[in-house]
Amino acid sequence: MDSYLNRMREEVEAELSAIRLPADPANLYEPIRYMLSLGGKRIRPILTLIGCQLFGKPYSEAMHQALAVEVFHNFTLVHDDVMDSADVRRNLPTVHKKWDVNIALLSGDGMIVIAYQLLFNAPNEKLRKLSDVFSKIALQVCEGQQFDMDYAAYPQVSISDYLEMIRLKTAVLLGGAMQLGAIMADANEKQLGQVQQFAESMGLAFQIKDDYLDSFGDQDAFGKEIGGDIREGKRTWLTLKAFELLGDDKQQLLDAYSNADINQRIAEVLSIYDKLGIKEYAEREISKYSDLALSTLAEIEGDEAVKDKLVDLVKSLIDRQN
Amino acid sequence: MDSYLNRMREEVEAELSAIRLPADPANLYEPIRYMLSLGGKRIRPILTLIGCQLFGKPYSEAMHQALAVEVFHNFTLVHDDVMDSADVRRNLPTVHKKWDVNIALLSGDGMIVIAYQLLFNAPNEKLRKLSDVFSKIALQVCEGQQFDMDYAAYPQVSISDYLEMIRLKTAVLLGGAMQLGAIMADANEKQLGQVQQFAESMGLAFQIKDDYLDSFGDQDAFGKEIGGDIREGKRTWLTLKAFELLGDDKQQLLDAYSNADINQRIAEVLSIYDKLGIKEYAEREISKYSDLALSTLAEIEGDEAVKDKLVDLVKSLIDRQN
Repeated sequence: MDSYLNRMREEVEAELSAIRLPADPANLYEPIRYMLSLGGKRIRPILTLIGCQLFGKPYSEAMHQALAVEVFHNFTLVHDDVMDSADVRRNLPTVHKKWDVNIALLSGDGMIVIAYQLLFNAPNEKLRKLSDVFSKIALQVCEGQQFDMDYAAYPQVSISDYLEMIRLKTAVLLGGAMQLGAIMADANEKQLGQVQQFAESMGLAFQIKDDYLDSFGDQDAFGKEIGGDIREGKRTWLTLKAFELLGDDKQQLLDAYSNADINQRIAEVLSIYDKLGIKEYAEREISKYSDLALSTLAEIEGDEAVKDKLVDLVKSLIDRQN
Repeated sequence: MDSYLNRMREEVEAELSAIRLPADPANLYEPIRYMLSLGGKRIRPILTLIGCQLFGKPYSEAMHQALAVEVFHNFTLVHDDVMDSADVRRNLPTVHKKWDVNIALLSGDGMIVIAYQLLFNAPNEKLRKLSDVFSKIALQVCEGQQFDMDYAAYPQVSISDYLEMIRLKTAVLLGGAMQLGAIMADANEKQLGQVQQFAESMGLAFQIKDDYLDSFGDQDAFGKEIGGDIREGKRTWLTLKAFELLGDDKQQLLDAYSNADINQRIAEVLSIYDKLGIKEYAEREISKYSDLALSTLAEIEGDEAVKDKLVDLVKSLIDRQN
């Protein structure tokens, strides 16, 4: 499994660094090259390639669409980092920190256009479908980011609103990535709907697992300090579930969060989680979405060997310890 | 002429306000609606409509592409206003002022995607040409904006670099707008190149005329105070030409600009312009580009009645007093 994904990832890396951009203006194109060189799991372009292979075409036929998705994803990172005033990404300065906010703004804009250019390296008859899916998903990602910013002012948003927000902000792009690959392999509408649902569900399971590991991970395997989200007062599935369960008794959780001693804050919040059984609720929620991903996958009429690899992928994302 | 353009403008306004956007998240879509409602000359979408009519199709067939261009143009305004920290546009607060910078950033991003969605309201066989032209022009507009920001740190940029910057930042989009309309009317490659050159040349003449009026306009007809650009120390064609002509004697112009008394500053700079004959240089430059526009137009194989209206348009832009 790992070597299969790794080979794709290496090809994506090579193709990303081979994207030809003009030299000037350097302050427009250098930040784009910089951003694309920062590495990462490249999960989205890999899903595009797998989405193509799943329906019987060599994955190389969806390489340009895979790059389009990754460039678009990196545009969102550049602008999100500006919005969040984040100074560091992958242990390196963010674009607005290394250059400035205006340059981050404009190079992000340029990346959207470059993503569309890459997307359209495809036969004429596929352009409408590619653009319909891509633009719809792109707008949903913007919607998710806006809901995320809106909810920052309403920390006690409902679980369902929170899930819809992370669905839009992160999960739909996984689905869209896979759909673009499937389009390149002439998948039908039903199959496109299925890969969208598969990847979205996997994405939701992945996000909730992220929240889960931060509070309930094994310290050694996790590699980061447990409770980082609690330290930062971050809104997560766990906290929102706790607020939901506490109902009118939520003051105790607010009190725990307002503890000035960080270690005590983490200990108290974790103790409330424990009392409420948040760990088990989260495990059930993760299983719910990973089961949905797997049952959707099982129904897809596609290459069985590729489906097996996707089953492995879902399991590895869910069982991961970090 | 005016009634011809006015009818198109009114139709563009009606269609812009009829663009259907989701209600939520309001902080994403409200700023877009707000921005599109601010009015303006709507010269770019009108050029798209005329570009279609020029090659024998009813202009309504290019309406979606006209809207795409206007939405794209308004995205550039939203982000440029952030980059310039501009608080007011059309006597109303800019998006980042009325909402905030993050909302301006994200709603601008969304407008790029919506522009592509509008653009692709076209028959399948036109999608590649539409996207090729649109993406190329969109990236050039980003390049022009970056050069503009770069040159802010190098106020004595050469005239040719300045002209290339305003070509990219503003003129190419006029050409692109017209090309999109021409594509909808099945214009051939030669004709597409001609409308691009026509509209770009008109755009350059228009921009230099803007600079010209600010220093040499008739106070009453101009409607604004003469010398506003000088007051603000703005880099214009006039100033750059003056620096070019002064060569090693440029200190006198720098001294004039550093005069703390605004009225004296304006008077001294205008006096240097007068001594150097900047007014006549500018008139020749405006004529050069408007002549190029008209000679290019004359060669286009297209509807002669529409060409006549375009001749009128060029003349009205060049002869305008404000």
